[in-house]
Amino acid sequence: MNEIDETILQPAPAAEEPATDIYDEDGYVRSNFLMLVGAAIADRDVLFLRQNVARLHESELGDLLEAIQPEQRIALINLLGEDFDLTALTEVDEGIRLQIVEQLSNDTIAAAIGDLDSDDAVYILEDLDQVDRDEILSKLSFTERVRLSRALDYPESSAGRRMQTEFVAVPPFWTIGQTIDYLRDEENLPESFSQIFVIDPTFKLLGAVDLDKVLRTPRLGKIEAIMRETNHPIPAEMDQEEAAQLFEQYDLLSAAVVDENGRLVGILTIDDVVDVIQEEAEEDLMRLGGVGDEELSDSVRATTRSRVPWLGVNLLTAFLAASVIGLFDATIEKIVALAVLMPIVAGMGGNAASQTMTVTVRALATRDIDIHNAWRIIRREAGVGLINGMLFGVLIGVVAGVWFDNINLGGIIAVAMLINMMAAAIAGILIPLLLDRFGADPAVASTVFVTTVTDVCGFFSFLGLATWWFAIS
Amino acid sequence: MNEIDETILQPAPAAEEPATDIYDEDGYVRSNFLMLVGAAIADRDVLFLRQNVARLHESELGDLLEAIQPEQRIALINLLGEDFDLTALTEVDEGIRLQIVEQLSNDTIAAAIGDLDSDDAVYILEDLDQVDRDEILSKLSFTERVRLSRALDYPESSAGRRMQTEFVAVPPFWTIGQTIDYLRDEENLPESFSQIFVIDPTFKLLGAVDLDKVLRTPRLGKIEAIMRETNHPIPAEMDQEEAAQLFEQYDLLSAAVVDENGRLVGILTIDDVVDVIQEEAEEDLMRLGGVGDEELSDSVRATTRSRVPWLGVNLLTAFLAASVIGLFDATIEKIVALAVLMPIVAGMGGNAASQTMTVTVRALATRDIDIHNAWRIIRREAGVGLINGMLFGVLIGVVAGVWFDNINLGGIIAVAMLINMMAAAIAGILIPLLLDRFGADPAVASTVFVTTVTDVCGFFSFLGLATWWFAIS
Repeated sequence: MNEIDETILQPAPAAEEPATDIYDEDGYVRSNFLMLVGAAIADRDVLFLRQNVARLHESELGDLLEAIQPEQRIALINLLGEDFDLTALTEVDEGIRLQIVEQLSNDTIAAAIGDLDSDDAVYILEDLDQVDRDEILSKLSFTERVRLSRALDYPESSAGRRMQTEFVAVPPFWTIGQTIDYLRDEENLPESFSQIFVIDPTFKLLGAVDLDKVLRTPRLGKIEAIMRETNHPIPAEMDQEEAAQLFEQYDLLSAAVVDENGRLVGILTIDDVVDVIQEEAEEDLMRLGGVGDEELSDSVRATTRSRVPWLGVNLLTAFLAASVIGLFDATIEKIVALAVLMPIVAGMGGNAASQTMTVTVRALATRDIDIHNAWRIIRREAGVGLINGMLFGVLIGVVAGVWFDNINLGGIIAVAMLINMMAAAIAGILIPLLLDRFGADPAVASTVFVTTVTDVCGFFSFLGLATWWFAIS
Repeated sequence: MNEIDETILQPAPAAEEPATDIYDEDGYVRSNFLMLVGAAIADRDVLFLRQNVARLHESELGDLLEAIQPEQRIALINLLGEDFDLTALTEVDEGIRLQIVEQLSNDTIAAAIGDLDSDDAVYILEDLDQVDRDEILSKLSFTERVRLSRALDYPESSAGRRMQTEFVAVPPFWTIGQTIDYLRDEENLPESFSQIFVIDPTFKLLGAVDLDKVLRTPRLGKIEAIMRETNHPIPAEMDQEEAAQLFEQYDLLSAAVVDENGRLVGILTIDDVVDVIQEEAEEDLMRLGGVGDEELSDSVRATTRSRVPWLGVNLLTAFLAASVIGLFDATIEKIVALAVLMPIVAGMGGNAASQTMTVTVRALATRDIDIHNAWRIIRREAGVGLINGMLFGVLIGVVAGVWFDNINLGGIIAVAMLINMMAAAIAGILIPLLLDRFGADPAVASTVFVTTVTDVCGFFSFLGLATWWFAIS
């Protein structure tokens, strides 16, 4: 694989050429490089672009495309023409990719897409609407077309969509010598491969052979003698996230993809799923923050639309909390200090809860915890809540008591804080667990429920206690 | 690599054996399997454990160790003895690993660690204190000891620590035939390898050859003719996170690790860094949630210690917000509805801000945004804030006006909401950007600052407007 091309040391002098690194020390594309490219695009300086842009690695080219102005992107691609590596489009934001692909003519895409690995080609084609997609496919060679449509026929974000359909396969009865001779003579092989698959005449997968085993076995040795089987097939229909989890679980570098009949249809490599693995972790972050799958390239309109629902839900719960305060307006009218202090009780509870919640949501995602084995963690969180509650209860009690020169007030807020910290701990762990148990995504819904609990409980315990105390005293 | 062992389809019947999957449909270790293992440990049923536990994949064994009781872990390892694959320890929580390693005798560890890949061995050894580590090393064969200490001499969490020190290297003037014969005859080679490195007599790295190229070149061809160079060496001192970013950036599967003189010292493979890549994304999640690098296995004490500082900071800011309310206690005394409604203004601002902040922090982590290219995003967020502010301002204004039958109150809260939503948007993006600009970790500090802004601004705008309005009217 051409990933391997990248793995070795460039002799020191070459490494010093400024051209070899387009990034500044912070890892962003150098602004002076951006200026040069921008100027070259404006001047239609194809020579400069060929020399300095065409030679970039696909991911560098992708970063460049994201960094320049939208209108410059198409101009750059058209100026480079043949020399533009379409693979770069697999490295940019979906929004940007769509915007570019829509502006490129189907002929341009068809001409370029033949050179791509099938997985990259599919990655780009699957975003297009049916009509354009079919037109582009119709312009490809028969084998190319068959290869790509086979992958495109699998459901979206399935292993079949992500797989590479180029691979080397031999029958089990071949000798090592036969195999090596075949590899030396055969023209029509994938550009690079890290293992040889073993199949029967019906293409049913029997096993695989690592290349190092081939190299270390005498010419007369049989393939079937050194071939390996395993328990981890990737059905082409399997969701890419499940496939990614298999890769994680078993530290796979690559896996054979098989159809429902166990026939070899392609190969999935870790670089195809490592992005999936990352998105997994990122998803939780975004959801806990109350944002959907939005991208930086999204418009104001799209962004607003994706955020309004969440804010709407929060508004409802905010009114719920407010109405709890409303129950005690008489008390607040008498002791306005309560109004001053009550946000502290609610806020501290909210923060404590979000700590517990974050840990729980992450643990659920990594499958380190579930409703069955949760008791130890629940006990721990309750313990932490108790300690923090007492700690900060006393702290706030003293400060509040001194501030308003009212010892009772200090005692009341201290108790309220303890109660709310306990509630926060329990809610912070139980709510995500229950949501997960009932098939909801804990990352999406937890925050709303949890903060509602801590707000309501915080206001109620504090104001309720105060009302009760000052009534009886 | 034995990752590859795992990549092929098991014939259907075999796949159906229950024994082949220890996980339930949710991906947790089956509780009945846990019971069987627990019983076998209690009965010292070594046979059962050999047949059902020893054969597990290292990561399955790791999950099992995490799932059983602490006291069972050591018992299990001692019962399995030679048959326990120490590699499993690289798959468990650091807390659990330490607890296990501390209880194992140095002899046990020394006996087992020789069989591990050097990177796994180092992973386990680096957690031990100097004394134990040296004693264990002293029990190893000379070559083993040299190999491991070389890696251990590099700084913690550096590429040198993560690298594998077993690799195949040949001189550039060898022919393919010579190389293949060497691979066939040489006994002392790594168990598996995916590329052959090319070095000069001083071990300086000249390049590498992919195995498929070796297989496709005639015997008389020269190594130097098919060898490759690249711009992406991994200096052994490089931090593992930097190395991980290189792997991501260039879709590397493996990379040569070189010392300061460009000499080949080891090889880094993606499975060594994929965990690092994940932790990267996870870190932001945990930090935004106000929790440090805590683990589920941490004690109540450790957990509390890690969370108290964050809550303490929030307490200070909470008092700041409270004191802002204190400024207007006279107004609240007159119109208690203000106390009821003010948390809504502050809360909505907080939520809107955390949406913007989450996106910004993530964009900073993935280097999609920085202080220089941020203007487009800032404009977008301001726009979103404006729209949401007007939308929810009107909404709240109407509800509040009706609720308290006070049109002025409705108008005041509407304006206050608009102001706070704008403040939230600006703070949500500028604060992380500035923190990043000044070298602080935006994920850690942003939440405090941002919520402080939205609380203070929310209370001040709402109560201030009310005070001013009812003073003049």
